[in-house]
Amino acid sequence: MPFTPVDPDFVRRVRDNFARQRVMQTFGAELTRVEPGEVEIVLPFRADLTQQHGFLHAGVVITILDSALGYAAYSLMPPGHAVLSVEIKTNLLAPARGDRLVAVGRVVRAGRTLTVCLGEGWMEREDGREQVALMTATMIGLPDRE
Amino acid sequence: MPFTPVDPDFVRRVRDNFARQRVMQTFGAELTRVEPGEVEIVLPFRADLTQQHGFLHAGVVITILDSALGYAAYSLMPPGHAVLSVEIKTNLLAPARGDRLVAVGRVVRAGRTLTVCLGEGWMEREDGREQVALMTATMIGLPDRE
Amino acid sequence: MPFTPVDPDFVRRVRDNFARQRVMQTFGAELTRVEPGEVEIVLPFRADLTQQHGFLHAGVVITILDSALGYAAYSLMPPGHAVLSVEIKTNLLAPARGDRLVAVGRVVRAGRTLTVCLGEGWMEREDGREQVALMTATMIGLPDRE
Amino acid sequence: MPFTPVDPDFVRRVRDNFARQRVMQTFGAELTRVEPGEVEIVLPFRADLTQQHGFLHAGVVITILDSALGYAAYSLMPPGHAVLSVEIKTNLLAPARGDRLVAVGRVVRAGRTLTVCLGEGWMEREDGREQVALMTATMIGLPDRE
Repeated sequence: MPFTPVDPDFVRRVRDNFARQRVMQTFGAELTRVEPGEVEIVLPFRADLTQQHGFLHAGVVITILDSALGYAAYSLMPPGHAVLSVEIKTNLLAPARGDRLVAVGRVVRAGRTLTVCLGEGWMEREDGREQVALMTATMIGLPDRE
Repeated sequence: MPFTPVDPDFVRRVRDNFARQRVMQTFGAELTRVEPGEVEIVLPFRADLTQQHGFLHAGVVITILDSALGYAAYSLMPPGHAVLSVEIKTNLLAPARGDRLVAVGRVVRAGRTLTVCLGEGWMEREDGREQVALMTATMIGLPDRE
Repeated sequence: MPFTPVDPDFVRRVRDNFARQRVMQTFGAELTRVEPGEVEIVLPFRADLTQQHGFLHAGVVITILDSALGYAAYSLMPPGHAVLSVEIKTNLLAPARGDRLVAVGRVVRAGRTLTVCLGEGWMEREDGREQVALMTATMIGLPDRE
Repeated sequence: MPFTPVDPDFVRRVRDNFARQRVMQTFGAELTRVEPGEVEIVLPFRADLTQQHGFLHAGVVITILDSALGYAAYSLMPPGHAVLSVEIKTNLLAPARGDRLVAVGRVVRAGRTLTVCLGEGWMEREDGREQVALMTATMIGLPDRE
């Protein structure tokens, strides 16, 4: 476990925040794992989130991955901060077909202001799983004005 | 108008394809403009697509922009081809707050296999509009197996 | 001219800084234009900066473009700041063959901490010019410790 | 070793090609490791390749990394093909100060036309090493016209 969170209550903080991302409920996504600097989110396949060939739309895959990377960064931030995505870069490796998308985000470098994360998206099927996306992103931590 | 589409019926082809992207209907997005190499999609704000601060989730902005860029590329392709996103790069310039997202995608270079596109996302409000995203992406055209 | 520089002496400041980028001298690059939020750098073709097919190496094109975008951001910063590249994203549109590379960087959004820039690289030849690269990047301004 | 090269003579093919990248000689870079789908290149620090603070210019780091990723892709291609960078995305994690840059590129997915790679750049110093860059890129394999 290479990162030590400054907030010992980071799991609860991440889970509370995730519960306020309404798009996650709309999509039916689930926060399945929260560790220091690493977060996993799972999205069961839904036909109403597909593109023209019946696969999950690339933007939907990116939405789930972006949240996984953002919460990985957020897990290492002190309380009272908000996390926002500065930039997101994604390679789509294969069409997102299968039973569920598993998105894992990890912190690569946590700086004072900016945190750089790396993530992978996998589609799981009965006969195995396939990587469908590779993401790198920069997150910024700001004092939360809420 | 710098691009000449090889398919004179490209507007109908883009509109038909957009109608099959179920996520666009789920989000309530509308295809508002189709020109050779340039496409605009509008998404009225929806609270059920927001992140934890009540703004549109970055991934939702990217979903709409990705479709705008993809259809800009698709508008220049010959009939019988499918378009897929190879890679998508987005800078988030400001939180996506406002009444509606206007996403414009334009082709920068249409090659034999790959097409590079550039796009802008704007949030419109009563008092004006603000650019919230800048996207570059690579699209691939493949013979459609449908 | 959409940007108003906070430092009226920005042209001299950019030129002085450029003169200290030793790699620009090593490559033989020239700072050809400095406006508020927009900078142009030209690199005459050199065979000793090529890849295996005799074109300028993609990394050389990126080096010149990165400096153009960085100085575009730097032109809008107050005195006493340093500019560093946070992330750089480039589409290579065509092989960089020709007589000289013309790189133009422009500021898209200048925030308090981060500045987002967009740039284009063109190869000029006797018979015209061709765009070879499209770049987006995030720059950070930090108090200069020099 | 997750990848099986189609060309058993891939090491010689990569080394021959690297020897023709004149910019690598100009910079003084060395090809230090060639495995199926993974390549390492080392660049000793040189003051004439620095930016204004005396660190290696971000574009120089990208040049070395881009070659490492490109040759990782090339190692898995059949003979008679050329490799070109389609797009390159880099996060700069720390200033490139130190004695030498070690750049490692790895194939994440090798498709029929496009290969996606991931890379890391490290600066080595007497007291240890620090990651300075994270790169993802798309490479295309084309029949070599030489």
